Amino acid sequence: MEALVTVDDIRAALTDLAGVVLRTPLLPCRWDDQLWLKPESLQPVGSFKLRGATHAVARLDPARRARGVVTHSSGNHGQALAYAARALGVSCTVVIPDGAPATKVDQVRALGAEVRMVPPADRLTVAQAIAAEQGRTLIPPFDDRRIIAGQGSIGIEVLEDLPEVDVVLVPIGGGGLASGVATAVKAIRPSTRVVGVEPALAADAQESLASGELLIWDPARTYRTSADGLRTNLSALTFAHLRERLDGIVTVSEDEIGAATTRLIREARLVVEPSGAVATAARMFHAAELPAGRTVAVVTGGNVDPAVLAAAVTGSGTVATGSAPR
Amino acid sequence: MEALVTVDDIRAALTDLAGVVLRTPLLPCRWDDQLWLKPESLQPVGSFKLRGATHAVARLDPARRARGVVTHSSGNHGQALAYAARALGVSCTVVIPDGAPATKVDQVRALGAEVRMVPPADRLTVAQAIAAEQGRTLIPPFDDRRIIAGQGSIGIEVLEDLPEVDVVLVPIGGGGLASGVATAVKAIRPSTRVVGVEPALAADAQESLASGELLIWDPARTYRTSADGLRTNLSALTFAHLRERLDGIVTVSEDEIGAATTRLIREARLVVEPSGAVATAARMFHAAELPAGRTVAVVTGGNVDPAVLAAAVTGSGTVATGSAPR
Repeated sequence: MEALVTVDDIRAALTDLAGVVLRTPLLPCRWDDQLWLKPESLQPVGSFKLRGATHAVARLDPARRARGVVTHSSGNHGQALAYAARALGVSCTVVIPDGAPATKVDQVRALGAEVRMVPPADRLTVAQAIAAEQGRTLIPPFDDRRIIAGQGSIGIEVLEDLPEVDVVLVPIGGGGLASGVATAVKAIRPSTRVVGVEPALAADAQESLASGELLIWDPARTYRTSADGLRTNLSALTFAHLRERLDGIVTVSEDEIGAATTRLIREARLVVEPSGAVATAARMFHAAELPAGRTVAVVTGGNVDPAVLAAAVTGSGTVATGSAPR
Repeated sequence: MEALVTVDDIRAALTDLAGVVLRTPLLPCRWDDQLWLKPESLQPVGSFKLRGATHAVARLDPARRARGVVTHSSGNHGQALAYAARALGVSCTVVIPDGAPATKVDQVRALGAEVRMVPPADRLTVAQAIAAEQGRTLIPPFDDRRIIAGQGSIGIEVLEDLPEVDVVLVPIGGGGLASGVATAVKAIRPSTRVVGVEPALAADAQESLASGELLIWDPARTYRTSADGLRTNLSALTFAHLRERLDGIVTVSEDEIGAATTRLIREARLVVEPSGAVATAARMFHAAELPAGRTVAVVTGGNVDPAVLAAAVTGSGTVATGSAPR
């Protein structure tokens, strides 16, 4: 096992972000005077993933920079890596599974990345082959020390803007964000509680931490959550960070995710995706399970299908966005 | 005529805002690498109006503070004044015309203000009577030096974040925002152009500046624009500022406002009201009429009816929100 990321790694990552990543403000919440939102949905690519991707690309040595990067993701990480690579003048290839929405493919191409469409089951092996053949560096979405360090910059910014924060709520998918934020916050202010939030339909991290070993939930089970960014399992590396540093996990239902999405749109005027609303949902519906006090909810992203957004605007309930994995 | 507001007035106003008003960031625009957005829609009350209202309340002397404030507005200024007054521990009454949407009335009440419902034609006289009888200070929405100075703080923040900005685009309704921003920007960096933007259906400021005298457009004419915050005419005070300091005005059509609203929601992930989208619309559709270079569009607010928002999300065109004035 690699060493865990340290707060010094995260401070170093923060110095790479200026000029590419937005320094998001904390937004005081109109309906809850102890709640602030960290709106990563406002990043140029619409999610916090730009932080880790930017740090990972910025720290390549000149020889690796010249050969470019590659990843496999039709989602927020693919867009983030394409954006960071373009900003830093590095060539980028994104391997995308056949059947991904055309708009997502177009967005990656519009950022100047080369796109390789492949059968879903082949995406990791194709990305690895491209890395081997072309000398590109494979930048994974979360299972990577530099990605964790980059996402952890959120924790430092939260403490800069609200030094006496009592609770930080972070969504957990692959666990890179939660690993980084917990590392930063617990090192700088140990009394602040860092609590992860998962959809009940994808509570693999909660079950893993409770059992003490990394448990994998089948995608045939997790695809039912509308929070499509949180269907991923932890890796050994993120599990090790969370076991050491996270103070707890709460889960939220699909109805709660839908209600929080609608509220963020209507009352905080943020366009958010369901995955981006789970931390807010935890504060709205599970405050009794959370430590009291000044709370920050990380709003992780806003890349949402227009039909899902329209349904959320009118409050017409949770819209299933999932389809069974192939 | 009162003296015009100075940049020193605006610097003084800026010192009143901390802790109440959000220091909004500049958001780089994904679709236009020379455009940045100033998202005032993220203010706790959803519009820039909180700036002027906060400064106006903060500068009351202790005797006036103790007697409270009053205004007449069912819109963004009413909410902003209620919020600022509560934040600063000052009593507030808002006179609202009968027939205003119940949600807006509820929002003002939820902020702790007293609401007086009156026939629309009586709102100014009732507000004046309350001021006279109760000793409350009447805080008008734009025709006031302190309101102009407060809104002008946006200009200073823009120059702090993008010191070499070439063009600042500001919506014009009553003209308080444009007066303040032009005052700040032209004083600090005279080479930067400050350009106002109006709906073609409420282009009273453009016509006034062209003719050299303050012209009033009948509400029976301006109610047709979806940008309901921009139907207002200038006052003598704001006209005097704009004549002296504004570099020009462009107008946008209803279709252009609708398209910009949809784009801001989908691609910048900001919930905006049509009035808040006009500056972005000018850059999207009238770049040939504007000076070239690094451009900031002020996104003034995000208080939008859910039905209008849902239509904008799906891009189903401009939705008329107006009804003929009574």
